[in-house]
Amino acid sequence: MTIRIRPGSFITFEGGEAVGKSTQIARLAATLRAAGHSVVLTREPGGTQGAEAIRAVMLDPATSLAPLADTLLVFAARADHVATLIRPALARGDIVLCDRFTDSTMAYQGYGLGIDRAIIATLTSMIGLTPDLTLILETPPAIAAARLAARAATPDRYERFDAHFAARIAAGFRAIAASHPARCALIDASGPIESIAATIAATITQRLAP
Amino acid sequence: MTIRIRPGSFITFEGGEAVGKSTQIARLAATLRAAGHSVVLTREPGGTQGAEAIRAVMLDPATSLAPLADTLLVFAARADHVATLIRPALARGDIVLCDRFTDSTMAYQGYGLGIDRAIIATLTSMIGLTPDLTLILETPPAIAAARLAARAATPDRYERFDAHFAARIAAGFRAIAASHPARCALIDASGPIESIAATIAATITQRLAP
Repeated sequence: MTIRIRPGSFITFEGGEAVGKSTQIARLAATLRAAGHSVVLTREPGGTQGAEAIRAVMLDPATSLAPLADTLLVFAARADHVATLIRPALARGDIVLCDRFTDSTMAYQGYGLGIDRAIIATLTSMIGLTPDLTLILETPPAIAAARLAARAATPDRYERFDAHFAARIAAGFRAIAASHPARCALIDASGPIESIAATIAATITQRLAP
Repeated sequence: MTIRIRPGSFITFEGGEAVGKSTQIARLAATLRAAGHSVVLTREPGGTQGAEAIRAVMLDPATSLAPLADTLLVFAARADHVATLIRPALARGDIVLCDRFTDSTMAYQGYGLGIDRAIIATLTSMIGLTPDLTLILETPPAIAAARLAARAATPDRYERFDAHFAARIAAGFRAIAASHPARCALIDASGPIESIAATIAATITQRLAP
């Protein structure tokens, strides 16, 4: 299918572990490029040299940080990512697809770890860039758990958290979607890859029509 | 001389480059310990394993960060430093001497680099710990420049800044002292080491009397 959306659109992908974000974001990038769009595919935390250096500190299992420090690191990496990569790309008219953004911080650190959500909201305002569309992928917990178990790599810090934590995060994403209905779309990500991709393409075409 | 101050006091040392902070903070620690106080001597950025890891990213000349990212990194390191080291020490009744704290961020990044001071003030409130006393050391620019030139080590990122930058920082520290007279004391640090140490001891004895 051919997909036409507004140039300079900023689209974020959100959701818990193993909901299929990486697969879907790569497919959407390919679909958009095939339709002639210029696409920048990036992820958080990371995306720039400085942000990757910060990410390395955050994911080092030897590093133990106070919860507020962890939150501020996430926003430090994000500030660099936004200033150095995302804003210039949007200014050029590129479509930016970002794997996780501010909503992940609210879901994981606010709803999941109990960091003061007002602090996260204040830091989000400091960043000063709101996505045009946020796709929140959801699967039943059993499907995400089976996908996680099938992965060979050593789990990182977040993936070592338990089912109760995953449930708080899922509830957090639903609360975020309910609070920002014009920006967010909940996507059922439990079916076949092709059908999820078609749902995403239809959602984007509708929400970001030129 | 014997020096008696309140247990659990939090004292910060501030000022531009090469004003003699390290020398004076070490002397004060020794004086306080000789008087029977339990003293924790620390510095910013740094002071904990997590904060030192963040400091390494900030001071790496290969890393180029957006200004807001730099500011958020400073506060991330500070949040860990405060939660992991400073607050527990104050709760034990120790006297904590800290080489640079929030005022350095306001002076260097706010007044020096032009980062929005309201953002720095907001981040300072998030940290939620105010010093009982802040000693701001001042020297005429020519003295600091001569001391800097005499140092053998490779200058780090801040020390490579120029005289105009140093002047903005000095003006920033004076503005901070004027805004918080109950907390801050300006110390003339241009005389002999012994006489500066005596001024500091007298100031502390007066401001933090048990």
